[in-house]
Amino acid sequence: MKIYGDMISGNCYKVKLVAALLEIPHEWVHVDIMVGGARTKELLTLNPNGKVPTMELDDGRCLSESNAIINYLAFDTPLYPTDNYQRAKVQQWQFFEQYSHEPYIAVARFINRFQGIPEERKEEYHSKQNGGHYALKVMDDHLSSSPYFVSDTLTVADISLYAYTHVSHEGGFSLKHYSSIQAWLNRVSNHPRYVGME
Amino acid sequence: MKIYGDMISGNCYKVKLVAALLEIPHEWVHVDIMVGGARTKELLTLNPNGKVPTMELDDGRCLSESNAIINYLAFDTPLYPTDNYQRAKVQQWQFFEQYSHEPYIAVARFINRFQGIPEERKEEYHSKQNGGHYALKVMDDHLSSSPYFVSDTLTVADISLYAYTHVSHEGGFSLKHYSSIQAWLNRVSNHPRYVGME
Repeated sequence: MKIYGDMISGNCYKVKLVAALLEIPHEWVHVDIMVGGARTKELLTLNPNGKVPTMELDDGRCLSESNAIINYLAFDTPLYPTDNYQRAKVQQWQFFEQYSHEPYIAVARFINRFQGIPEERKEEYHSKQNGGHYALKVMDDHLSSSPYFVSDTLTVADISLYAYTHVSHEGGFSLKHYSSIQAWLNRVSNHPRYVGME
Repeated sequence: MKIYGDMISGNCYKVKLVAALLEIPHEWVHVDIMVGGARTKELLTLNPNGKVPTMELDDGRCLSESNAIINYLAFDTPLYPTDNYQRAKVQQWQFFEQYSHEPYIAVARFINRFQGIPEERKEEYHSKQNGGHYALKVMDDHLSSSPYFVSDTLTVADISLYAYTHVSHEGGFSLKHYSSIQAWLNRVSNHPRYVGME
């Protein structure tokens, strides 16, 4: 299988991390998102929405959206629960990640780290702080009584939220007041076969 | 089971529609989102992220995020595929909906229909048009060769995308040039036990 992605993106890193944890053989095809690499003719054939990561199976079938890809890869492994309610809980946290976390924390990180907060995005950058901290507070409260998001062990819900949370300082978010998040980040990164983002 | 929601929200309507199609008995608890009803103390206990829909099972367990809820309800029914790849495809379209569709089409609808495009949101309203049309184009292209999003029959992926697409004109989006979307909207609304949004 081929995975098309750019490791500066937390969404792409999720797939890399799950593939590493589960030792899934794959070919990583680097796509430079800083120069519009996900919107070339070839990539648009694989994912008409023009985004990475995108996965291409050996039989040519494709799958996009980071959380859908990692759920597919983790199916029938310890990273994906078997119970229907717990699976729904995994998805709940993943939709929370894509709607209430990523648009604040990942976008602020991109504006700061990869664009150096240009004048025309300064207001947008600062407008991301409240929403990002709201998401971090929800996470911290939840983790104060649970070692991982959905069960007592690591699931793909943790991977989804780990990707941008562990680099949230690059978006101007200090984790100083989120001690439960800090402890959880350590738990995730101490897993056998863990790989970092860079 | 109780479902907390406000029918002016497409996200809440998804749950109502799936419950109707599957004839799932439930108590609908109206939450007025226009006056911050999802952030009352009681609701925050059920969903600390302060959003509806939220589902409360008879044993007290809760689930939030519209797409996670409908996947839970549809499990083991014809609306949810059994194959792992097809399930991942359902999720792919649902993440597309939450990240690349809802933030444009649903937000533009809210600003127009429920706020009357106030001066301070005028620029934001107009900025939503390009992204919304990009999402509609991706959908229309896909539907030009497939009657539904994931298989030859209706799945929850269709419900997720139907919710805000069928009222996209309220956000200023004409569907005139999207004939495949128009045909698909008709297919969805012709299903037995279909209920409308209002």
